[in-house]
Amino acid sequence: MKRLQDKINEEGRVISAAVLKVDSFLNHQIDPVLMKEIGDEFADRFANSGITKILTIESSGIAPATMAGLNLGVPVIFARKRKSLTLSENLYTGSVHSFTKNETNDISVSKDFIDHNDVVLIIDDFLANGQAVLGLLDILKQAGASLAGVGIVIEKGFQNGGKMIRDRGIRVESLARIYSMENGHVEFYEEVKTI
Amino acid sequence: MKRLQDKINEEGRVISAAVLKVDSFLNHQIDPVLMKEIGDEFADRFANSGITKILTIESSGIAPATMAGLNLGVPVIFARKRKSLTLSENLYTGSVHSFTKNETNDISVSKDFIDHNDVVLIIDDFLANGQAVLGLLDILKQAGASLAGVGIVIEKGFQNGGKMIRDRGIRVESLARIYSMENGHVEFYEEVKTI
Repeated sequence: MKRLQDKINEEGRVISAAVLKVDSFLNHQIDPVLMKEIGDEFADRFANSGITKILTIESSGIAPATMAGLNLGVPVIFARKRKSLTLSENLYTGSVHSFTKNETNDISVSKDFIDHNDVVLIIDDFLANGQAVLGLLDILKQAGASLAGVGIVIEKGFQNGGKMIRDRGIRVESLARIYSMENGHVEFYEEVKTI
Repeated sequence: MKRLQDKINEEGRVISAAVLKVDSFLNHQIDPVLMKEIGDEFADRFANSGITKILTIESSGIAPATMAGLNLGVPVIFARKRKSLTLSENLYTGSVHSFTKNETNDISVSKDFIDHNDVVLIIDDFLANGQAVLGLLDILKQAGASLAGVGIVIEKGFQNGGKMIRDRGIRVESLARIYSMENGHVEFYEEVKTI
């Protein structure tokens, strides 16, 4: 997605060869117009997939997922990172390991909102080691739901998450797929537009 | 806002005289179409206020705030509840006390995104004791920013937050203002439509 790549080039800050900061439009400040375009792009790529629900994780997945849900006309569920007192029962729970923080946290989704009749699109802001997607896939398995695929705003293509998930036969659509961030420069995989 | 009141009547669950659960469309599962209508309503009510930024708190404020930002054409910033490692410097920090959990937590916003030139609309999902809004107001004060007002999706009008904030001369627009939740029934203040 050209406009997203341009935005990353203009405003993204490469902190190290593995860390990209996009706090000015995705992870802290949000650009709603860009989020709408991202949501529309996800909706286009997964049109005719029979999607009934979108699943994401708080907090940075919420804006792009909600815009995709608006276009597709389906509800969006955000997995919670901490168990809330009012949500303590009736939950699907998955684990997400963070290599950066070297800790494992639970994520949870109420059983009220996903079941075996659902066809779910997973959306998240970043794909790196794929641990968040694994946690969400575990939740969908517990629910007996079908998976339409995974929509990612920014994939760090030089980390192993994308390969790991695609190797399971899962469709992954990344709107910006980074080949390398060596020398402080973001280099994208050549964009192949599938129409 | 009639459609929001109807949704609360249809899907809201009164857990006690003070606790309303709206997990099916706002706090866990999100109804994107309703969020769009809510965002448009905020934009209408605060039109011509010269708003340059919207400020909310993760996670449930993000969807309505992003839709309002889309309509108004301004960026949305969500205050973070935990300090992230990559965000540890250059922060405005406020405190939010939770009477429910009896704990005080910090919220923070990067100094990169709000300054004294900004006119800010605060948006949040719920207004009860007003502690979250106080934390956000403290951040705006640190930034030297101007306040356009406060937009709330659901106000528990029987708690003191709304009065406390309005008594400071701040404009508060609540799209659904609850008078009472006694006996498991949600009763709204009579809706006064200001055009």
